[in-house]
Amino acid sequence: MSLPTNSDSKLNLVSQTKSFGGWHKQFSHASSSVKGEMRFAVYFPPQYETKKDLPVLYWLSGLTCTDENFMQKAGAHRMAAQLGIVIVAPDTSPRGDDVANDEGYDLGQGAGFYVNATQAPWSAHYHMYDYVVTELPELIEKEFEVSSKRAISGHSMGGHGALMIALKNPDRYSSVSAFSPISNPMDCPWGHKAFSAYLGEDQSVWAQYDSSVLMSNAVDLVPALVDQGLDDNFLQEQLKPEALEAAAAKNNYPLTLNRHEGYDHSYYFISSFIDEHFKFHAGHLMY
Amino acid sequence: MSLPTNSDSKLNLVSQTKSFGGWHKQFSHASSSVKGEMRFAVYFPPQYETKKDLPVLYWLSGLTCTDENFMQKAGAHRMAAQLGIVIVAPDTSPRGDDVANDEGYDLGQGAGFYVNATQAPWSAHYHMYDYVVTELPELIEKEFEVSSKRAISGHSMGGHGALMIALKNPDRYSSVSAFSPISNPMDCPWGHKAFSAYLGEDQSVWAQYDSSVLMSNAVDLVPALVDQGLDDNFLQEQLKPEALEAAAAKNNYPLTLNRHEGYDHSYYFISSFIDEHFKFHAGHLMY
Repeated sequence: MSLPTNSDSKLNLVSQTKSFGGWHKQFSHASSSVKGEMRFAVYFPPQYETKKDLPVLYWLSGLTCTDENFMQKAGAHRMAAQLGIVIVAPDTSPRGDDVANDEGYDLGQGAGFYVNATQAPWSAHYHMYDYVVTELPELIEKEFEVSSKRAISGHSMGGHGALMIALKNPDRYSSVSAFSPISNPMDCPWGHKAFSAYLGEDQSVWAQYDSSVLMSNAVDLVPALVDQGLDDNFLQEQLKPEALEAAAAKNNYPLTLNRHEGYDHSYYFISSFIDEHFKFHAGHLMY
Repeated sequence: MSLPTNSDSKLNLVSQTKSFGGWHKQFSHASSSVKGEMRFAVYFPPQYETKKDLPVLYWLSGLTCTDENFMQKAGAHRMAAQLGIVIVAPDTSPRGDDVANDEGYDLGQGAGFYVNATQAPWSAHYHMYDYVVTELPELIEKEFEVSSKRAISGHSMGGHGALMIALKNPDRYSSVSAFSPISNPMDCPWGHKAFSAYLGEDQSVWAQYDSSVLMSNAVDLVPALVDQGLDDNFLQEQLKPEALEAAAAKNNYPLTLNRHEGYDHSYYFISSFIDEHFKFHAGHLMY
């Protein structure tokens, strides 16, 4: 497969590996949103060779992850190749020596929380919301011959990101799903720490990035699927799917939330149910 | 699922995670073969709850790996759960501060090559052949209610291990498979370095661990499946499937060797074809 980029490509190819008849590729590029280099991974299913209008699933990873975790551990290429869905997985934050960081794993590099930071020092680079919502899809749809039909999914911090972004941009996504999302970040320690650092102390700003608040007020409804393991160590303190469920009930939101006995927060849980997420998205992307 | 061990278990449970309706568990134990602690992982498919005679696939990993790489990256649990096959993945060498090591990634810890070392300092602990062939299956079949029907598979150094062990012990395995195996270790840099360190300079000893030599002389024939990527960086210098193929041709050995355009040495290659390996083994383990 030749490099599927335009001659004036803004992308640097970092690696490429054949997988399930298609290609896994990593790219880096200069990002205007985060004002620095960003890396992302793409899985091109085998159909990409001949079809120029495949839909794209964006995957947002959780705390400490890069573009690699999902691609290596979710077992997602198999179903993407079967259904003809392109996968795009960005990094979870800006990176580099000149990018602010924190000693904790849950703030700074690897923990961008998919918001636009307004507070120093984070506001210099941490604009992951703009990156994921606007810059990255524009880049993908310019550099590669794919359709503008998009779905979005993610895990934990990335589940928060996927739900929040779809709820704020219902015109941009056909469907949204999440594994073990941080469902109500305003009301959990991870969210408190990140939102107060990135967004300051005004909780009305936090609410603009909180999926449970957004879902209770949503007007245009993107179909949503959430899976949650019941042996997840973070379930009660950090994830709070009950808040999302209550918001959906209040607003008659098309949310399917499945709870699974015995499953934890790991990629073993994701891989066990990733096929169902792809089939859910395919149903909305393709018909 | 309760811990599936006897009350006089010799195993320490390190972790357990639900996956595809079954359980991934890591155990450590005092090994008499390597005279130290060993760790291994087991995938119990959901059928293990009710069936007490499931067959077992042993997986041997490659250089630098532990028991974790295959379990996390191969996407194998799905098909193991579908077919009802237990997977056991040992570490690739003894470990610890008192275990000899080397600065290279291809000798010492993480690089046991599945032989019984005869040369100091390696001979004190590096008896991976005895561990994999005898101690580990005895332990598994005593601690868990599984059948003694066994298959063996592996990748790269572990592909060498799987083929070599099955060829030397045709009574112990129903079938053998390998991804990108070091097919003729006597005749490649990795094998030269490891065999001279572990076994000394007598090449007649090396030959006892060389799959191409063993396959050309085998009398009892274990059905063998090998998959090899043609964009594998190690193909020409280290892996040499043509030696295995020549040995099979000479001896009318039941070897199926598939070459795959574009695939490299990574777990993306393994995950792309792991389902076929499970189906191959199931055909021999179950009928």
